[in-house]
Amino acid sequence: MTAFDFAPLFARDLPPAAGRWTGFAEHNFVGGHNDPEGIPVEALVEAATRQLRAKGRELAIYTLDGGPQGLRELREVVARKLTEDRGAPTDADQVLITSGSLQGMDLVFSLLVEPGDTVIVEEHTYGGTLSRLRRRGAKVVGAPLDEHGLRIDALERLLDDMAAKGVRPKFIYTIPTVQNPTGSVLPVDRREALLDLARRHGVPVFEDECYADLVFGEDWPPALRGMEGGDAVIHIGSFSKTLAPALRLGYLVADWPVLSRLLPLKTDAGTGAIEQLVVADYFGSRFHEHVAALKPRLAAKLDVMVEAVEREFGTAAEFTRPEGGIFFWMRLPGVDTSKLYAAAKAGGVDFNPGAEWSTSPQARDCLRLCFALPSEEQIRAGVARLAEICRRETGIPAVSANVRHAPAT
Amino acid sequence: MTAFDFAPLFARDLPPAAGRWTGFAEHNFVGGHNDPEGIPVEALVEAATRQLRAKGRELAIYTLDGGPQGLRELREVVARKLTEDRGAPTDADQVLITSGSLQGMDLVFSLLVEPGDTVIVEEHTYGGTLSRLRRRGAKVVGAPLDEHGLRIDALERLLDDMAAKGVRPKFIYTIPTVQNPTGSVLPVDRREALLDLARRHGVPVFEDECYADLVFGEDWPPALRGMEGGDAVIHIGSFSKTLAPALRLGYLVADWPVLSRLLPLKTDAGTGAIEQLVVADYFGSRFHEHVAALKPRLAAKLDVMVEAVEREFGTAAEFTRPEGGIFFWMRLPGVDTSKLYAAAKAGGVDFNPGAEWSTSPQARDCLRLCFALPSEEQIRAGVARLAEICRRETGIPAVSANVRHAPAT
Repeated sequence: MTAFDFAPLFARDLPPAAGRWTGFAEHNFVGGHNDPEGIPVEALVEAATRQLRAKGRELAIYTLDGGPQGLRELREVVARKLTEDRGAPTDADQVLITSGSLQGMDLVFSLLVEPGDTVIVEEHTYGGTLSRLRRRGAKVVGAPLDEHGLRIDALERLLDDMAAKGVRPKFIYTIPTVQNPTGSVLPVDRREALLDLARRHGVPVFEDECYADLVFGEDWPPALRGMEGGDAVIHIGSFSKTLAPALRLGYLVADWPVLSRLLPLKTDAGTGAIEQLVVADYFGSRFHEHVAALKPRLAAKLDVMVEAVEREFGTAAEFTRPEGGIFFWMRLPGVDTSKLYAAAKAGGVDFNPGAEWSTSPQARDCLRLCFALPSEEQIRAGVARLAEICRRETGIPAVSANVRHAPAT
Repeated sequence: MTAFDFAPLFARDLPPAAGRWTGFAEHNFVGGHNDPEGIPVEALVEAATRQLRAKGRELAIYTLDGGPQGLRELREVVARKLTEDRGAPTDADQVLITSGSLQGMDLVFSLLVEPGDTVIVEEHTYGGTLSRLRRRGAKVVGAPLDEHGLRIDALERLLDDMAAKGVRPKFIYTIPTVQNPTGSVLPVDRREALLDLARRHGVPVFEDECYADLVFGEDWPPALRGMEGGDAVIHIGSFSKTLAPALRLGYLVADWPVLSRLLPLKTDAGTGAIEQLVVADYFGSRFHEHVAALKPRLAAKLDVMVEAVEREFGTAAEFTRPEGGIFFWMRLPGVDTSKLYAAAKAGGVDFNPGAEWSTSPQARDCLRLCFALPSEEQIRAGVARLAEICRRETGIPAVSANVRHAPAT
C-alpha cells in the first residue's frame, strides 16, 4: 500500500517545504546566536535549584499563579528594567511574557495586519519581520536609514505621500536602539521627531528593543515607549540577546486597550515556566552585572571582526561600525551576496544575505555577520575563508591581507 | 493629551477583549491542571543541574544543536515512547518538539484548514480545538460518541453523506485514548475500522494523545499512528499531563512530506531549551516509573470525585466513569450549565460548561470537572458547594447527601 498522500489537502500559499537539518556551518555567522562563554552556567543552576524547590509543585498549574500574562515575578523584572533603564515607567500589569519576542511580533501582526494593509519598516530590517508581513499580504514599505537610523525627513515625505493617497499605515516598525542589521542607535532628537510624526499621522509605532541592552558606548537614549507620545508605542524585547537565545523568553509592553485584545490571540496556554522562574530569579538580582560583563566581550569580538574584515576585504568592503549588539552589516559593491551565499555555505561559511534583510534592491550587495558566537580565532579564520571564497567567485576583493590577487577568470 | 486610540487599526473579526486576570477560584475544577504532589521536585532539580552543567553554554545557540525539530535527546525520548509504549515505530527524525501540544494543533490547522473547509471532530471534544477551527472559518461537524468513543457506524454514515455531497473533509480529529472530555478509550476493533474508513474516504486522521499515558486499567490499545493505515495519521502528544502543564512541552509525529511543510510554519525559533533538557533527562530514564506513580494518585482522586458526585447530586447526575486522565464529564439533565457557570464562579467554584466542549446543543446540560489539582478534601468540599449552588439556582438536585430539599422557588 502506498503512503497516504496529504498534498491535495494542504492549504494554498504555504511556504516552500523545509529541507532536512544538516547542522551548522563550520564558520557560523548566521542568525542571532550569542557568546557561549557569556552563559552564567553556575548561576543558572543555582537559580533553577532555588526556584524549583520553592515553586516546583506549582508547575502542576498552568502559568503557575501568574495568569495569562505570565509569571508575575518575571513581569516585575521587565517592568523594573523598562522603568529604571529605558525611561519608560511600566507596571507589571502592562507586561505580557512571550515565547521569544517573535511571539510578540506575531501577536501584534495578528492584531493589526490584514491583507492589503500598508506597514512601514526600516529599509534594512529583521528578515523575520519582512517574511511575516509579506506572508500576511501586507504592503511593506521601507523608510530610508543613515548611519544614525531612520531619516526623519524621508519618513515625513513617505507619510505625507501616503496621506495624500488616503493610505493610513497600520504602524511604523522600528528597531531604534541597536538597529538590526545596521547596529545604529537613533538619537534622542530623532526619537522625538519620530513620535511627533507618528502622532500627527495617527500611526502607531511598533518598537523592537531586542538588542537595546547591548549599546557599547555611554549614550543610551530612552525607549520610544517612555517618551512623550509613547502611549502610541507597542514595545517588545527579549532575553535572547542578553542571556541566551535558546531560552525563548521575550516580552511585550502595551496599555490595556491593546493588551486585552492581544491576550485572546495568545492561545498557547503560556510560556514555559521553568525558564520564566530561572530568568526572573537570575535577572531579578543580577541583570546589570550580567550585561556589564557581556558587553565588553561582544565589543572585543566586534574589534576582531572589524580588523579581520579590513585585513581580508580591504577597500572592497564598506561598513559603519555598529554601536552595539551582535551583528556586523557590510556592503561589498559588485557582489551579489545571495549568489555568494551558496558558494560560501559549500565552503563552510554561513551568513545572512542582505536581500533577505532589506526592502531595498540595493541591499543585494550587503550581508550580515553575527560575531557573538565564534571565538576571536574563529572570526579571523571565518572572515579569511569568506574573503577567499568571495574572491574566487567574484574577483572581489582584488587585494586582501596586503596581497594583490590575479583577477578572477 | 488623550491616549492614542488603536481601535480603528485593529483587524476585523478579532475575538472579544480579555478581562483582567483575577486569580483562580477557591474550588478550581477548570482546565487541565495536574496533581501538585505528583511533581518530582528533587528529580527535576537534579536533571536541571546535570543538564545545565553539561550543556549550559550551548544555550547561546538557538535550538542548541537540534535544529528546527527540537532537542535531539528529547525527540529520542518521544520516539522511544511511541515505539515501545504506543505500538508506533518512530524515528527521532519524525518528531517535532512543540511548545505544548497546542502549538502542534495550530501548525496542523495552518497546514490543512482554510475558511469553508469541513473538519470532523468528536461530538464532545477539547474546547480549544473547536474555538481554533471556528476562528479559521472551518465547518466543524461532530461525530457521535458512546461510552467507548467514536461510533463507527455513525461516522461511516457521516462520511458517506459528505462524499455524496462531494465534500472531502480535511481530517478527522480524534482523542482516542482517554477522550477529552468523556474519558473513554477507543477499543482496538474500532481503531481498525476508523483507519479503514479514513483510508477508503481519503481523509487523514489527526490523533491527539494528550492524555493517552494515563489509562488507569490494563487495556491500553496502541496509538492509531502505529496501526495499519497509520501513515494517514498525524499524531500529537504532550508532557503537560504526565509531568507538568506549566512546562509547555509537546510533540508532533508525522512523516517527512507533512513535517517538511509544517516546519516553515513554525516561526518561533524553537521551544525553550532548559525545559527540553530537563524533560529529556528526567523522562529519558524515569518515564514509566513516574507515570506508574501518578496514575494511582489520579485514580484515587477520581474515586473521591465519583463518591462526592453520587453523594451530592444523587440521581440528578448522569455520568460514565472515565477510564483514565484527569477529567470527569457529567450530565445534569434540566440544568443549563452555561448559566450555572456564572453563579458557581461567584460562589467560588470554577468548571468548564459543556456547551464549550461539544458540537452538540444537547451538551448544554453537561459540565467538565478536572479532579487532578484539588486535594481529596477539596474535591469533596467543591462538589458539595457546586451542588448547593446548583440546587439554589435550579432546584437540582432535589435530593442530596440523603437530604431532600424544598423545591427552589
